Amino acid sequence: MNAADLGLPVDVPSTALFTDQYEFTMVQAALKAGTAGRRSVFEAFTRRLPEGRRYGVVGGIGRVLDAVENFRFDAGVLGFLHDHSIVDEPTLRWLSSYRFSGDIWGYPEGEVYFPGSPILRVEGSFAECVLLETVILSILNHDSAIAAAASRMSTAAGGRPLIEMGARRTHELSAVASSRAAYVGGFSSTSDLAAGFRYGIPTVGTSAHAFTLLHDSERDAFRAQVDSLGRGTTLLVDTYDVAEAVRTAVEIAGPELGAVRIDSGDLLLVAHRVRQQLDDLGATATKIVVTSDLDEYAIASLAAAPVDAYGVGTQLVTGSGHPTCSMVYKLVARAQSADPKAPLISVAKKSLGAKSSVGGRKWAARRSDAYGIAEAEVIGTGAVPAELVERQLLVELVKGGTVVAREPLDAARARHIDALAALPMSAGQLSRGEPVIPTEYV
Amino acid sequence: MNAADLGLPVDVPSTALFTDQYEFTMVQAALKAGTAGRRSVFEAFTRRLPEGRRYGVVGGIGRVLDAVENFRFDAGVLGFLHDHSIVDEPTLRWLSSYRFSGDIWGYPEGEVYFPGSPILRVEGSFAECVLLETVILSILNHDSAIAAAASRMSTAAGGRPLIEMGARRTHELSAVASSRAAYVGGFSSTSDLAAGFRYGIPTVGTSAHAFTLLHDSERDAFRAQVDSLGRGTTLLVDTYDVAEAVRTAVEIAGPELGAVRIDSGDLLLVAHRVRQQLDDLGATATKIVVTSDLDEYAIASLAAAPVDAYGVGTQLVTGSGHPTCSMVYKLVARAQSADPKAPLISVAKKSLGAKSSVGGRKWAARRSDAYGIAEAEVIGTGAVPAELVERQLLVELVKGGTVVAREPLDAARARHIDALAALPMSAGQLSRGEPVIPTEYV
Repeated sequence: MNAADLGLPVDVPSTALFTDQYEFTMVQAALKAGTAGRRSVFEAFTRRLPEGRRYGVVGGIGRVLDAVENFRFDAGVLGFLHDHSIVDEPTLRWLSSYRFSGDIWGYPEGEVYFPGSPILRVEGSFAECVLLETVILSILNHDSAIAAAASRMSTAAGGRPLIEMGARRTHELSAVASSRAAYVGGFSSTSDLAAGFRYGIPTVGTSAHAFTLLHDSERDAFRAQVDSLGRGTTLLVDTYDVAEAVRTAVEIAGPELGAVRIDSGDLLLVAHRVRQQLDDLGATATKIVVTSDLDEYAIASLAAAPVDAYGVGTQLVTGSGHPTCSMVYKLVARAQSADPKAPLISVAKKSLGAKSSVGGRKWAARRSDAYGIAEAEVIGTGAVPAELVERQLLVELVKGGTVVAREPLDAARARHIDALAALPMSAGQLSRGEPVIPTEYV
Repeated sequence: MNAADLGLPVDVPSTALFTDQYEFTMVQAALKAGTAGRRSVFEAFTRRLPEGRRYGVVGGIGRVLDAVENFRFDAGVLGFLHDHSIVDEPTLRWLSSYRFSGDIWGYPEGEVYFPGSPILRVEGSFAECVLLETVILSILNHDSAIAAAASRMSTAAGGRPLIEMGARRTHELSAVASSRAAYVGGFSSTSDLAAGFRYGIPTVGTSAHAFTLLHDSERDAFRAQVDSLGRGTTLLVDTYDVAEAVRTAVEIAGPELGAVRIDSGDLLLVAHRVRQQLDDLGATATKIVVTSDLDEYAIASLAAAPVDAYGVGTQLVTGSGHPTCSMVYKLVARAQSADPKAPLISVAKKSLGAKSSVGGRKWAARRSDAYGIAEAEVIGTGAVPAELVERQLLVELVKGGTVVAREPLDAARARHIDALAALPMSAGQLSRGEPVIPTEYV
């Protein structure tokens, strides 16, 4: 995919400056020291899940592949690095021909993960790999946080459709990525047209309170909406008095009215009353959509309410209390010299404290019990035990610099459903707890 | 500023799809009903501050102005809206010549705000104003959340410089906007090169643990870094043993060593020990930078430590517990007919519950006591009392569709310092509390 294919509303000619300055200064110093070409293995992983969460959801892999492909240096970028003396001339020359030429393996999008899971493994020269740290982490940390919240909300919704409508609560492009991650996590549609444009996610939306207030009466507003959008539209019924609005709505649209939306008040109570009223008016097929500050707990508490769809905004795009993951990108192995045949040695930060990590190039597999239910995330650096070979989690994403694992977003969405189904049932509990399966190092 | 001036690394040819679908369907229905042209006033405001916060910080105004200017419909966007049947043909025709032609007044960037403050007031036809809702809220909600966190951290840092380094913890473009908002809120620099490129924010960065681990010894790594980046560089001293690293660092770079960075452990304790050691080694001018999971509370707790600069990541870009604001964009007044001379009438949602709002086109002023310290945020819809005329907060940003209030980012940064200085001292308390001044409606 080249830059043009990235499409509107944002064309990203290069992702090369979505990078912390120290990546560049490290490349400069390593080039001078003759160590930049040492074959290296970096891994992205998280030391822990957000507090109380039972599992993580891998989001953003497709976006990472786009970012790696578009990580290159045109005259504008090089000019900036030169004019601001970020790096020296030899480094600029090296950057000018930069293309990632290494290999990337990773958990496929939609898969679940646990503490220590080697979600992405990036191999190549030190210099080509270290430069990708920031943009890879930005994407994985953001998109995985949103996908995890979406997954919990989907479980809470128990099959009722979820509409992503959080664009206004987050950065305008974060919103597009959030719609994408929400779709992977089980949402059905989005209000965000940019997400529809960029990723083909189904878009929905009819009207806001402003539309009712624009008109001389609620009746005028409803009539205007039905005249233009048809009887199948969704009318917003809580601008003034809900019962009166529902009566007016069915009077104007008839029992073919598509849906009513409730955006305030005690949703459980109001939904019951509105359902009863709609049924009494013969609008038995008219659906009820609720959309007021919902999170997974509010959604679960509405399980007994006659609600047909949920619209979720703020809590989705802010990861329901955990707007980022704590994924890090660490050098875990590197060659002893710049010789391409030099053996790899494991490396890891040794300083005391919570930030130490496990060195070595890792594999991961999910061990299941006799019923096919996951019982452990197994991570190792040596040979993969025979019984786990078929249970391995990392797949090849980039081979010699070429992306080899493009897939439609629906594939990631389906994978997430399968991955969740293979977890212990307690994964679906919203209450705080430990990861549903332990991580074992072998 | 046209699209080309928006610069790298993201060119935004149009912001028109950063929009919820219902904005478009409302325009379609209003066009058909003959109400789309009614002169309207929308206001962006928040009903409350995040729990416990004493004040809000207006972030993103400059980005809003860019977004309004670039909100237009090219063939690609119109084709998408057509192909997906988002709107009908008359609406597509209307959109094809869309340019916002109205007026926008607002709080200038860096100003503080309180519950009810009319942060942005957008006036024009209903259709041209309603379309801007989503993108305006995306920008204000995101950027103001980050600016508020930055402001608290700046207060906690008490004049010591703060480095924004959260790019890896948030969406890659959210990161760029976060650097910008952090700068407005008092940060000095950023690690994010895209923010340096796009907004001219000073960038910094030298090396990570990976650089030390790449080399055969810490000594080799330090020597490679100093050889390339000079003695004034910042060496990361916590990969193995801190005391040994500091000794090696000064041995290699001499007392001219710019700084050492500590990224783990008990920062208070380690900073004291490192300072003593540096002083004993004669490196009395070598600075200490700390960077481990800092927030405003951690920064404040290090006030007594010999720390020269703080690097802040996760907590900055996630708004320190409040990653979004609750700003809404509401129709508060509209004409009784499409006649441009028709008088405006106040409108507001009337349904019971927390979501009701105050109708009418508002002014705002900050009343001060005899010492020049703010004592109330005064908001009204009628004539401005004579004593408050000079204290008004809204400034003209867009006049007849033309942006009239561009300013350098440093102006917003300076304004924030002035605005904070005019608040009661308790604004600087990090503990939870009520807004430092009350909002009065007159």
